[in-house]
Amino acid sequence: MALIVQKYGGTSMGSPDRIRNVARRVARWKAQGHSLVVVVSAMSGETNRLIALARDVSPQPDARELDAMVATGEQVTIALLAMALKDMGVPAKSYTGGQVPVRTDSTFTKARILDIGDSNIRRDLDEGTVVIVAGFQGIDADGNITTLGRGGSDTSGVALAAALKADECQIYTDVDGVYTTDPRIVPEARKLDRITFEEMLELASLGSKVLQIRSVEFAGKYKVRLRVLSSFEEEGKETLGTLITFEDDIKMEQPIISGIAFNRDEAKLTVLGVPDRPGIAYQILGPIAEANIDVDMIIQNVGHDGTTDFSFTVNRSEYARAKKMLEEEIKPHIGARAIEGDNHICKVSGVGVGMRSHPGVASTMFRTLAEEGINIQMISTSEIKISVVVDEKYLELAVRVLHKAFGLEQAAA
Amino acid sequence: MALIVQKYGGTSMGSPDRIRNVARRVARWKAQGHSLVVVVSAMSGETNRLIALARDVSPQPDARELDAMVATGEQVTIALLAMALKDMGVPAKSYTGGQVPVRTDSTFTKARILDIGDSNIRRDLDEGTVVIVAGFQGIDADGNITTLGRGGSDTSGVALAAALKADECQIYTDVDGVYTTDPRIVPEARKLDRITFEEMLELASLGSKVLQIRSVEFAGKYKVRLRVLSSFEEEGKETLGTLITFEDDIKMEQPIISGIAFNRDEAKLTVLGVPDRPGIAYQILGPIAEANIDVDMIIQNVGHDGTTDFSFTVNRSEYARAKKMLEEEIKPHIGARAIEGDNHICKVSGVGVGMRSHPGVASTMFRTLAEEGINIQMISTSEIKISVVVDEKYLELAVRVLHKAFGLEQAAA
Repeated sequence: MALIVQKYGGTSMGSPDRIRNVARRVARWKAQGHSLVVVVSAMSGETNRLIALARDVSPQPDARELDAMVATGEQVTIALLAMALKDMGVPAKSYTGGQVPVRTDSTFTKARILDIGDSNIRRDLDEGTVVIVAGFQGIDADGNITTLGRGGSDTSGVALAAALKADECQIYTDVDGVYTTDPRIVPEARKLDRITFEEMLELASLGSKVLQIRSVEFAGKYKVRLRVLSSFEEEGKETLGTLITFEDDIKMEQPIISGIAFNRDEAKLTVLGVPDRPGIAYQILGPIAEANIDVDMIIQNVGHDGTTDFSFTVNRSEYARAKKMLEEEIKPHIGARAIEGDNHICKVSGVGVGMRSHPGVASTMFRTLAEEGINIQMISTSEIKISVVVDEKYLELAVRVLHKAFGLEQAAA
Repeated sequence: MALIVQKYGGTSMGSPDRIRNVARRVARWKAQGHSLVVVVSAMSGETNRLIALARDVSPQPDARELDAMVATGEQVTIALLAMALKDMGVPAKSYTGGQVPVRTDSTFTKARILDIGDSNIRRDLDEGTVVIVAGFQGIDADGNITTLGRGGSDTSGVALAAALKADECQIYTDVDGVYTTDPRIVPEARKLDRITFEEMLELASLGSKVLQIRSVEFAGKYKVRLRVLSSFEEEGKETLGTLITFEDDIKMEQPIISGIAFNRDEAKLTVLGVPDRPGIAYQILGPIAEANIDVDMIIQNVGHDGTTDFSFTVNRSEYARAKKMLEEEIKPHIGARAIEGDNHICKVSGVGVGMRSHPGVASTMFRTLAEEGINIQMISTSEIKISVVVDEKYLELAVRVLHKAFGLEQAAA
C-alpha cells in the first residue's frame, strides 16, 4: 500500500490506443491497493508542432506566450488519461501545473520549481482518486503559465514524489531499464536491477538517454527512490526495471564497474605550443563558451620549455566552428604554435562506484585496450569514471572487450 | 479614446497569416488611441479535432476532462495573437479564462458566467497593454476549467464588455454586417447600419447565423453596444458594419420592416382530429420534447365538432423521427384521426420593430405572396415578426418579392 508517482513520456501517450494501455497499467497498480499520482508528457510530436506553429506566427516567439501555448500539450493528455481511467471505472482527476499548484520562478521556457502545494492532491488521494498531473509545467507567483524546458516532465515527476514523500517515483520509458552497455553493440549486455545515483549521473551525462540528468540530480538531492521501467511490456510480463538508489543501499558484493558508456558524437581539438602561463585556459575556452559551444573533456599536460599543449572535446556538430575560432581568433591572440583536430574520435567510459576502493580499474582498462591494439588518445578520470578517447572505428570493439573484461555479462553475486 | 472589446472567431484565427491580419487590425485600433480587449476563438476545426480525439479515447468523455482539453484550443490562439502583436511592437498579454478570471458555475460543457474579475485587465489596460482573452472558457469556484458551450466566445466578448463597461463590443465575422436579407437570393439586399436588439434576436432565431442568440440576449440585458463587422476587409476599406442598438436610439424615420429572414431546414407535422380538451397540447408535445426534438412554430386553430387540428414545425433532420412518434405513440394515445406531414416547406419572416405601430404589415405580406400565387400553409406572428410557411420551391421568390414590397433595397431616409 505505497504512494507511487508514475511518469509516462510522449511515446507512451502517443495515440488513443497507447493512452488506454497506460490507463490499464495505472488501473492494475491501483487495484493492488496503491495510491497513484501519474505525471504525463504531451503526445509525442505535439510540443514540436506547437513550437513550429508559434514560429509561423512570430520568428522569435515571446517566451511567456510560448509557454502558455506549449503547456496545452500536456493539458490535452492529462484529460485524455483521466477520461480513459473513468471509462474503466477508476476514479481519476486531471490537474494542470497551475491547478496543483506547481509553483515556479518566472524564467519562461526553463523555469525552476520552487515548491508544490500538496493539499488538493492529498484530498483526492484520500478519496481513492488517481491524480493525473501535467508534466513540464507550472505557474509563477503572478499566475503566469511556465514550462520547465525540454525533458521537464521527468523533473515534474521527481518533484511531486519529493513533495508528497512518495515511496517511489517510476519513470516509464521505451526501454525496460538501465543496461551495462548498449545491447545493440554487446548482445550480452545485462539489465541492472540497481544502480547508484552517482553512476546514473555519469551514465546520463555520457549519452545514455534513459533519464534526464536534471531529474536524476533532483531525485538524488531529495532522496527520491527512482525506478526506470518500460511502458510497453505486456500485462503479466512486466519486470521491475532498474532501481536508482543510494550507495548505502547497494550490497557489498557489487561489481567494481556497473556499466560501459560511450559517445560517438565527439571531436577533439588541440592547441599546440601554448605559452605556459596563468589564465591561458580561460583565454582559450572563454571565447568558445561565449559562442555557446559546450566543451566536454579538457586536458592539459605538464609543459616543458615554457609551452604546453591544451586539448578539449566538443560535440562533433560544433567541430568546424570551434576549429575556425581557434585558428582565426584564439591562436593569434595567445601566440600558440598550431591547431590540430580530429572529428573521427569517440569516447568510451567505465562507470562504477566500486572503483573508489579498487585501484586496479584503470590499469585493467588500459591493458584490455592495448591487447586489442587500440591506441588511447586522451584519458580523463573522475572519482567513479574513467573515460578514454579512441579512434571511432574502434568504438564497438572497445565497448565489447571492456564489457567482458569487467565481467558485466554475469549478474552480481 | 474608447474602451473597445473585439471578438474574433475561428475563421479569423484560422491560420498564421490570418492571425497576423487580426494583429494588424488590432494594432490600427490601438494606434488610434483606444484601449483594447480582444477575445478569440480556437482556430477553426480545432475544437472538433479535440472532441474527436477525446471520443477516440472514451466513447462518452467525462465532461470535466473534456472541458479541460477543449479549452486548450483558445489557449493556443491567445498566445499566437499576443506573439504577433509583440512582434509588431504592440504590448500585449494573453489570459486564459481562469487567469482573468471569468468565474462560472460548474456545469461543464455549458457553464454560465457568474462574474468577471476585472482588476488584472484594468491594470494591463492602464499600462497601455492590449489584453487578449480566451473566449468560450472560464473557471469554477473549485478551480476547474469550464467551457460555455458552442458559440460561447461571443458570450465571453459581451460579458467582458459588460464587466468592463466597454464603450462597444465588436464581433468580427466573415460577413460585413447584418443585411435586409441574404444577398445570395436578393442581390439588392442592403447592409443595415443599425438594427435593434429585438429585431436581431428574431433574425438570429430565424436562421441568420451572424451572431449567437445567447450573446445578443446577454448584450440586451446588460446594455452592451454590439457591432458586427467583417474581419476580412482590407486596410483602408473597412466599414463600420452593423450596430445593434436599443429601440430608443433608432430614429423615427426607420422602416417598418428591417429584414426578411428565412429558414429552409423546416418540416411541418399536423395531428388531425384531435379531441378538443384541456391538456392535449402537452400530450402531443411533451413526448416530442422529451425525445430532444426542438419544436419551432406551434399552431392550433379553433376547433369544431369537438375536435381540432394541431400543427407544428421541427428541424427537417428530425422529421422522420417525430412523425414516427406521432403515428406510433401519440396518435393511439390521444385518439387522433390521422397524422399528416410535409418536409418540403420553408419559413419566411418579416422582422421589424416598426410593425408595432403599422397594422398594415401583415396584409401587405399576404397580398404580395398571393399576387405571386404562393399559397400560405401556416402563419405565426409575434410583436415584431410575421412568419409564414410556404412550399420550399417558393422560398427565393417569396424572399425577393417581400424584400421589394417593403422597400428594403432603399436606404432609410
